Amino acid sequence: MLASLLRAVRPAPKFVMSEPKGPIVKSVVPGPESLALLNEYEGLTQDFRTVRFFADYQKSIGNYVADADGNMLLDAYTLNASLPIGYNHPSYLSFLDNANIRNHLIHRTACAVTPSSDWALKLKNTLLPLAPEGLTEVFMSCGCGIGATENAMKAASIWYYKNQYGVDYTPEQIKSTIEGKPPGIPDYAFLSLEGAYHGRSIGLLSVSSSSGLDKVDFPSFKWPKAPFPKEKYPIGNHSENKAQESQALEATRKVFQASKIPIVGLMVEPIQNEGTYYASPYYYQQLQVIAKEFKAALIVDETYSGVGATGKMWAHQHWGINPDILVFSKKAQVAGFFSKPEFRPPHPLMMMGTWCGDPLRLYQLQGVMNVITNDNLIANAESTGEYLLSGLSIIQGKRGKIANIRGVGLHLAFDMPDKKNAWGLCKKLLEKGVHVGVAKDNVIQLRPSLIFGREHADIFLNAVDASL
Amino acid sequence: MLASLLRAVRPAPKFVMSEPKGPIVKSVVPGPESLALLNEYEGLTQDFRTVRFFADYQKSIGNYVADADGNMLLDAYTLNASLPIGYNHPSYLSFLDNANIRNHLIHRTACAVTPSSDWALKLKNTLLPLAPEGLTEVFMSCGCGIGATENAMKAASIWYYKNQYGVDYTPEQIKSTIEGKPPGIPDYAFLSLEGAYHGRSIGLLSVSSSSGLDKVDFPSFKWPKAPFPKEKYPIGNHSENKAQESQALEATRKVFQASKIPIVGLMVEPIQNEGTYYASPYYYQQLQVIAKEFKAALIVDETYSGVGATGKMWAHQHWGINPDILVFSKKAQVAGFFSKPEFRPPHPLMMMGTWCGDPLRLYQLQGVMNVITNDNLIANAESTGEYLLSGLSIIQGKRGKIANIRGVGLHLAFDMPDKKNAWGLCKKLLEKGVHVGVAKDNVIQLRPSLIFGREHADIFLNAVDASL
Repeated sequence: MLASLLRAVRPAPKFVMSEPKGPIVKSVVPGPESLALLNEYEGLTQDFRTVRFFADYQKSIGNYVADADGNMLLDAYTLNASLPIGYNHPSYLSFLDNANIRNHLIHRTACAVTPSSDWALKLKNTLLPLAPEGLTEVFMSCGCGIGATENAMKAASIWYYKNQYGVDYTPEQIKSTIEGKPPGIPDYAFLSLEGAYHGRSIGLLSVSSSSGLDKVDFPSFKWPKAPFPKEKYPIGNHSENKAQESQALEATRKVFQASKIPIVGLMVEPIQNEGTYYASPYYYQQLQVIAKEFKAALIVDETYSGVGATGKMWAHQHWGINPDILVFSKKAQVAGFFSKPEFRPPHPLMMMGTWCGDPLRLYQLQGVMNVITNDNLIANAESTGEYLLSGLSIIQGKRGKIANIRGVGLHLAFDMPDKKNAWGLCKKLLEKGVHVGVAKDNVIQLRPSLIFGREHADIFLNAVDASL
Repeated sequence: MLASLLRAVRPAPKFVMSEPKGPIVKSVVPGPESLALLNEYEGLTQDFRTVRFFADYQKSIGNYVADADGNMLLDAYTLNASLPIGYNHPSYLSFLDNANIRNHLIHRTACAVTPSSDWALKLKNTLLPLAPEGLTEVFMSCGCGIGATENAMKAASIWYYKNQYGVDYTPEQIKSTIEGKPPGIPDYAFLSLEGAYHGRSIGLLSVSSSSGLDKVDFPSFKWPKAPFPKEKYPIGNHSENKAQESQALEATRKVFQASKIPIVGLMVEPIQNEGTYYASPYYYQQLQVIAKEFKAALIVDETYSGVGATGKMWAHQHWGINPDILVFSKKAQVAGFFSKPEFRPPHPLMMMGTWCGDPLRLYQLQGVMNVITNDNLIANAESTGEYLLSGLSIIQGKRGKIANIRGVGLHLAFDMPDKKNAWGLCKKLLEKGVHVGVAKDNVIQLRPSLIFGREHADIFLNAVDASL
């Protein structure tokens, strides 16, 4: 219906995938089977309260997630943005169907101590070609974004103090680390932005300020936060955005100037994941200037935004900046960071971990990248993203009620008037077999896989149109 | 040779495994091929300096790790204690050879949001039967010990303050968390023991004091440490050990009494992994009494010591204590913690993570536990451990030079006079095709798999005997 109104955008690629023609809805979600499983689950674990439904990953296909009640839901939230090429992609399944898999699987190798003979080659051929220019080194974490981002912060700290007082640590420095005190552990800070979310470890919560319930009662460093510009979207249409950005940048500079302790690193998400907020390229370029001015490392956290879904391999490439360190996880299947070579610690054993990389997950990334490249999926993300934005604008014109339509590629969001309306829309969409996320009370968020095409966009847009 | 002297210990189980009869040494280790690979590796990553050799995991079998130079090394260090049943165990390989694997592999499922339909059943049947009595709940971390141990600390914090001021957080509490300040984030501490190693995230380094180079320049909480008793081994033979333990316990109590801020949790390794230090059951039982007295959670970190290698499923079971929280990772393949039910957070979303558990790794644990149970490998760990201790005592009597022989099951160690001698022995053992670890400058450490049998112990003991 709406599709007929959208002629301006480029044609979408075709996928060979045995998806259903649209969502299949047999029950409310969560349905009776999911609720029964939830009841079972409640006795075993703390996690049960965040479960939306129980999925059947064998029956899920492409953009459709099957649930325990036989529903097939169009998935625009895809495992919290960690599913790059949809469910059970046939090319990826073929790739995984070989004898190598068992070998990759049977041992969780200690890459930091006894890596496999082909490990260096694999890093060189699979991972490092994905790094932005100048970020020629990679550090692998054990398995998820926590280790990746925390180690990025550690690398930045080592680099900062290497520049300050060299690399020959005194016995006093080493000894004082036991109690966490200077001179071994100087008092310093990382600067992050209001609204940022970098993860839930104790260190990462100290640079996150997304909500409150995820931090209450946990140990935290009392590090400063700089304001993030409150923009109206689309950015180009609002003259006051420029003023917002200038104020935020000025405040950021003031935080650096006013800090009584050094700020060794500035942490930035290219798109704030909680709420899908971003600013203009100018803003990010100026952040880089400020970081450089105060000799702080610029750490770009692409845990959510990396690997193509924004229409570029890395979302920060939309802003024309060159980070010192780039963190990846989620869609990459492996986790770690790329860095400039000067971020290599001066001594061994300063940073490591038993596993430090996972050949199995790297193998998966290889399979994922094959599909992304062969099917031209980054271009698809860009094109479908534009299509979705246009479609949402048309709906806004027709129905009102939704505001601040925004997004980069397939990382999209819009605001509902309030929490009740947001969850109401979410529920109505589920009734129509469409799965989306809700953030910051009133924000509807989309995080589909890179195979989300125009036909899926149409289903989504029609469902939103009919629900409002 | 030495084996003939050791008749007192129980017979070892037999394994069907096509191992070589002994180590095969074709080159020094690292050999030319490993060195060439290291050279290649150096350009790509920071991790290259901790590499001991490059391994060929397809050719590795049982207790023998193959390296890039065609050496087959008897492995008494096994991927930093994370390989439970040796390399390419045939039963485990068969277990992994089925269609389920690809399905487990292709999606890293978001267990906290949309777990698979069989997830609850899997936790119930595979993981929870391994929990010690009373620890009826499990929290799964994303992939490694960092997430597991940090979340255990978070659970302890929530529990402590739930007991203090209830669970209805005020807007002031929530708001103040953004800056990491009271009332949302009270000032408090975790108490850990001198020499402890709990991991390398920023939060975990604050409860570790194993060396110094792994902490220098990293942010750290200034939390207290209590002394760990300096024992002579075997513990039973030295009367001054009791005094050491009493002093350490008294000092621990004093840290609690003197602390100006609450201590919400006491972190304990059943065996300190760095150096393989432990005390008597009495000591650990008293630690539990002290934790209870001061209303702190007792967190037992079994990242290294768990899953059978000490001769019990969990090493703390040697000490007759009941932790509030038990952390697992490494040999378990999955990572997380078991806890008493009162450690469940009062609200959803306080603790979670995108992945929160990994069905693939849980499936691996199932395969591992099948082998451990069928082959009676925990009894093997106990029996081979006793055999190794006896053998090392005989060598000590014959050659001197080694001291403080100690261990629980296969977690064994002894002291060399100094760093030079320790690394010298390590090198000589490698020349004879035996791979061990070195810790704390002068400690030779063993962390073999649970399939390390008497025949492997003989090879190890003869190599030590000949090297001294």
